[in-house]
Amino acid sequence: MSNTDEESEMTKTATALAFVLSLGAGDAFGQSFTGNLGSDDVRAVSPALEAYAGEALAKRLWSRPGLSKRDRSIVTLTVAIARNQSAILPEQLALALDNGVKPSEISEMITHLAFYSGWGNAMAATAAAKDVFAARGVAASALPPAKPELLPIDQVAEAARAATVEKLIGTATPGLVKDTTEVLFQDLWLRPGLAPRDRSLVTVSALIANGQTAQITPHLNRALDNGLTAGEAGEVVSHLAYYAGWPNAFSAASIVKDVIAKRTAK
Amino acid sequence: MSNTDEESEMTKTATALAFVLSLGAGDAFGQSFTGNLGSDDVRAVSPALEAYAGEALAKRLWSRPGLSKRDRSIVTLTVAIARNQSAILPEQLALALDNGVKPSEISEMITHLAFYSGWGNAMAATAAAKDVFAARGVAASALPPAKPELLPIDQVAEAARAATVEKLIGTATPGLVKDTTEVLFQDLWLRPGLAPRDRSLVTVSALIANGQTAQITPHLNRALDNGLTAGEAGEVVSHLAYYAGWPNAFSAASIVKDVIAKRTAK
Amino acid sequence: MSNTDEESEMTKTATALAFVLSLGAGDAFGQSFTGNLGSDDVRAVSPALEAYAGEALAKRLWSRPGLSKRDRSIVTLTVAIARNQSAILPEQLALALDNGVKPSEISEMITHLAFYSGWGNAMAATAAAKDVFAARGVAASALPPAKPELLPIDQVAEAARAATVEKLIGTATPGLVKDTTEVLFQDLWLRPGLAPRDRSLVTVSALIANGQTAQITPHLNRALDNGLTAGEAGEVVSHLAYYAGWPNAFSAASIVKDVIAKRTAK
Repeated sequence: MSNTDEESEMTKTATALAFVLSLGAGDAFGQSFTGNLGSDDVRAVSPALEAYAGEALAKRLWSRPGLSKRDRSIVTLTVAIARNQSAILPEQLALALDNGVKPSEISEMITHLAFYSGWGNAMAATAAAKDVFAARGVAASALPPAKPELLPIDQVAEAARAATVEKLIGTATPGLVKDTTEVLFQDLWLRPGLAPRDRSLVTVSALIANGQTAQITPHLNRALDNGLTAGEAGEVVSHLAYYAGWPNAFSAASIVKDVIAKRTAK
Repeated sequence: MSNTDEESEMTKTATALAFVLSLGAGDAFGQSFTGNLGSDDVRAVSPALEAYAGEALAKRLWSRPGLSKRDRSIVTLTVAIARNQSAILPEQLALALDNGVKPSEISEMITHLAFYSGWGNAMAATAAAKDVFAARGVAASALPPAKPELLPIDQVAEAARAATVEKLIGTATPGLVKDTTEVLFQDLWLRPGLAPRDRSLVTVSALIANGQTAQITPHLNRALDNGLTAGEAGEVVSHLAYYAGWPNAFSAASIVKDVIAKRTAK
Repeated sequence: MSNTDEESEMTKTATALAFVLSLGAGDAFGQSFTGNLGSDDVRAVSPALEAYAGEALAKRLWSRPGLSKRDRSIVTLTVAIARNQSAILPEQLALALDNGVKPSEISEMITHLAFYSGWGNAMAATAAAKDVFAARGVAASALPPAKPELLPIDQVAEAARAATVEKLIGTATPGLVKDTTEVLFQDLWLRPGLAPRDRSLVTVSALIANGQTAQITPHLNRALDNGLTAGEAGEVVSHLAYYAGWPNAFSAASIVKDVIAKRTAK
């Protein structure tokens, strides 16, 4: 095999895409929804899929009221990171920037998801974001510092949370209890680069995207406490059907319904 | 960068493979089961794994009665798409064609799985299928049209389904309820390019492959209504053990047993 | 973009890594925890993430008592394989070797996970391991043979296991029952290249990494029977929080607590 062949084989799709992005094709991606592929490529396998991209996704889903385009981008980018989907990650990173998600917020989303979907997912997302940030000329000064001044903590709520966790799992996994307090709730969640409401939106979306139904209830309640509306929560699930698959959306929908019903009943 | 360079850049490992496939090596892949790797590559890491590929997979599993080779290909390709497994996707696309799954049916499978496993999975599968279709000379005319004449709908069953869903999740996620009706059951499921029995086989396989046990029961009942036999359903689970892992197969097996027992008891 | 830039961008990260590994940079990877990326790359997206890598991971987690570095490598490499995380797979393969996991043990881990997380995952892991083994000069003679002399089987325990499975799922999925006995428990689990305690550690880690909570209890009991201590089991969960995400760790933690409590009560 020649060197040239080897190089072309070694290429990651992301790179070619980053190159196209640098030509300012962000808008085109926002409307084609075909990930790293062109519409022609999709049509060469499934004319129907290309039609769904234009109609079900572009004309209907992304334009539907009930959830802002910025929120839809936060939700979709979360799925792409939490499920390690390199085929749509560069597209969704670019679209998120187009839809008003700041580079600093994307930086925080990736950092947050390192803890909520796994370190390896965050590393894959970082590789893609690095290229998109470079193509868009994002400067280091636009990123949140490693050690910012943290948001104030609600000591009462945090003490209650810590006590619940200690009771639930403390004896078996002391390391997890300690890190949950010190790394997550007294540090990560207090980083100011992503609003608590958006951080909750990322967390809930990641849970639904990976079918982690057992943890949706507490985090959805936290999200609603942090300012997500019940209507938005429902539309998050409806949006996720397309990106995390109908089965994950359906499993989440009945939980979301129950959480909202209980809060309304109070 | 020249156009040619760009094209080669965008290529994934799939392309190198598609090249080999175009040399008519389909049979070899059908028997090696080593994905994008050669048998020598596998032996360089695990001689045992290469032996299991030849014996447990090629000689036993894929040759076992109870499920046709075509069905085994539908099931395995579904896992590769639904779990985004690029390491075996090109191999399984080629093997599916060798085993009698038509290009039009593969096209419909990918489209169906966009909704049942997530849009990003479908885009990754499309990238791989594009190369395999090109290598096999699949013409655009062999693909299902974007807007075919749909199969007739069973209005009574559909009304019952819609009412159940409305009651289950309607108030919380109206967008999901609407799209489930309009995009899925009054459109996607009625596309004639994939027989309802095969569409159900794809759906159930995707649910098992991703551990979405909560939705197996209704979709397995639909599959049995659509013509899948109880014996085939059991062997689908047995086949999936190898491709989706033993834990997912075991979680599915007791559900499949219950569904079949209830139908037999009637 | 210059040619040099293009090439460096386009290169598959795995390849670059394998090259660096051949220079003996294992230690550096052990401390950077940035997967296929350099620390500068991570900082270009998230200075916080790079700081967490150095502090939460390198200084705290990997140095914490309660679980050996070798065990932490077995657990982390299992996650990378079971969740198909190419962004950290080469790094973790190299680190595992540095931490005393033998090439023969890595070979067995990949083979074991073919059955516990799916054939496609094993093929992706084999592709990465092939490069790392080549860079480290691992000889074919260092790998376990395809057909070794198997460990003695505990006939009583195996008969009990087989009877339980037969009763649970036998009628619906006879192929699965047969393969579980012949391929898994009378063959794979008896391969001597990976100690039963380590094989159990791999299995439990894979179950937690993929959220397969239904099967944790029997396999954790087997792990404890095979010599894993209760303290180690708890720290496995704590370690997995970082690599499989907090939600999977929390779902596992309460199960682990219950299993340990029941055994202690006896």
